[in-house]
Amino acid sequence: MLMGLDIGGTKILGVVASVEGDLLASVRVASPTGGDQVVASAAEVVEKLRAAAGGPGAGVVGVGIPGLVDVEHGTVRHAVNLGVADGYPFSERLGAVTGARVVLDNDANAAALGAAALLGERDLGYLSLGTGLAAALVLDGVLRRGSRNAAGEIGHIPVDPAGPRCECGQVGCLETVASGSAIATLWPGDGQPAAQALFDAAAAGSVEAAAVRDRFAARVADAVRLVALTVDPAVVVLGGGVAQVGERLRVAVAHALAEQAAASPFLRSLDLAGRLRLAPPDRPVAALGAALLGAS
Amino acid sequence: MLMGLDIGGTKILGVVASVEGDLLASVRVASPTGGDQVVASAAEVVEKLRAAAGGPGAGVVGVGIPGLVDVEHGTVRHAVNLGVADGYPFSERLGAVTGARVVLDNDANAAALGAAALLGERDLGYLSLGTGLAAALVLDGVLRRGSRNAAGEIGHIPVDPAGPRCECGQVGCLETVASGSAIATLWPGDGQPAAQALFDAAAAGSVEAAAVRDRFAARVADAVRLVALTVDPAVVVLGGGVAQVGERLRVAVAHALAEQAAASPFLRSLDLAGRLRLAPPDRPVAALGAALLGAS
Repeated sequence: MLMGLDIGGTKILGVVASVEGDLLASVRVASPTGGDQVVASAAEVVEKLRAAAGGPGAGVVGVGIPGLVDVEHGTVRHAVNLGVADGYPFSERLGAVTGARVVLDNDANAAALGAAALLGERDLGYLSLGTGLAAALVLDGVLRRGSRNAAGEIGHIPVDPAGPRCECGQVGCLETVASGSAIATLWPGDGQPAAQALFDAAAAGSVEAAAVRDRFAARVADAVRLVALTVDPAVVVLGGGVAQVGERLRVAVAHALAEQAAASPFLRSLDLAGRLRLAPPDRPVAALGAALLGAS
Repeated sequence: MLMGLDIGGTKILGVVASVEGDLLASVRVASPTGGDQVVASAAEVVEKLRAAAGGPGAGVVGVGIPGLVDVEHGTVRHAVNLGVADGYPFSERLGAVTGARVVLDNDANAAALGAAALLGERDLGYLSLGTGLAAALVLDGVLRRGSRNAAGEIGHIPVDPAGPRCECGQVGCLETVASGSAIATLWPGDGQPAAQALFDAAAAGSVEAAAVRDRFAARVADAVRLVALTVDPAVVVLGGGVAQVGERLRVAVAHALAEQAAASPFLRSLDLAGRLRLAPPDRPVAALGAALLGAS
């Protein structure tokens, strides 16, 4: 029995899964603000999952959290939306309350492991298209965190010297054009998530929305190509909040990849469009991956 | 005893090394053109190395060659400068003539393994700055070839929509601004290698040469950042023909990385300048790495 928690800016989703990755139970609570508060809510989720699974169990709990995670020490920096202070001893505190060993990692890393399990792939690049843009890499079955836990920070690679200034201080970063925020700037959602509003408007026949959608898809295709030409994973998975629009996103990005390849025999030989996958929108990818974090 | 061959457009360099990577013997011949001719010259190098090492020995020969190598089948495509036909059974032919088992790989991959051994690093990105630009990755001690042997093809990642058209059919590829060819366009060498001529002129006080050098160094810094933000290796090594200008190249690129980081706390925290290394210019990096290919 594996237990995993996906801690996000709005909710904490916990799951119990079998070692084969089958979902056995799930619990969801709203995310509070502040380190101690987040630990208390996470502990509540763990207790509810133990009750649902019928026993104490789960001596190990895997946790995915946004921010720069120090995997060795179980701490996080830049978890801005959660109000967790830099260096807060998250794993230690949650471990003390629950009696479990806590394995903490970045939420994109957890989601990549979950996607690998759900899609049956051992070698993939996972694109987390949320407010920002990050990638995570599972290479030949092993999560690649990098020497400073900075692998997959592709959102801050500049791709256009004439592009907008990025919050990171650089100019023309990929994140400024290939992320949920980038969509929200071009197509405010009016209550709805911006990606949903954009793809719906395009499907309803808006020429303007279709143009914005295609331009966005081309920039996501840039991110796919960047990952493919650097580490050449067997598949590239589109995930994160934007991927909730579903198969329409994969189709739009695959179309953009095919257009890019039309001018380049080299790109065509790599068949990037054929290697594109969608993270299952109806499955708790990150929580399941967090559970697998605990199993390794 | 390990034997490795570095087959380049102008010469074939063979070495015999100890399993610890110490150089025991080396032989160099000019590169001919055509598959059978290259095999014959490579076989000649193997025989001379066997004689120099005092015995038949070397049942395995590692070979690094430019082009897209099919590692499993021992064939190469796009080995344009050598005139080797696509799909030519290189490993099989050289094996038949020498009686050795031949392990064939891309020359940048071989060089990355050689650099890892010479620098004592287990985790690195190697930038091959030659006529073109390619990277090779040794991640946690293991060469990352990718699902289609395309890992490290960063030269064909577009980084400027307003950049020049690349031979690959795309626009603004990194290779068009961060390679030996890019230097040659801006600063023709007049007989000398262009990089050497440029760095010499800059050192001699030419303001124009210094400006071209710094602009080139900034684009190489872009390549370093791209590799670092994608796979986050412990060190990034500058290698290939351009790196023959030596420590001056590392200093110029480290300076450019520090300038980029000045505007970005995020980049500063990653200390890319401090992680930059130079491939030892006076050592046969690729031939030594080829020898290590055979050992694995």
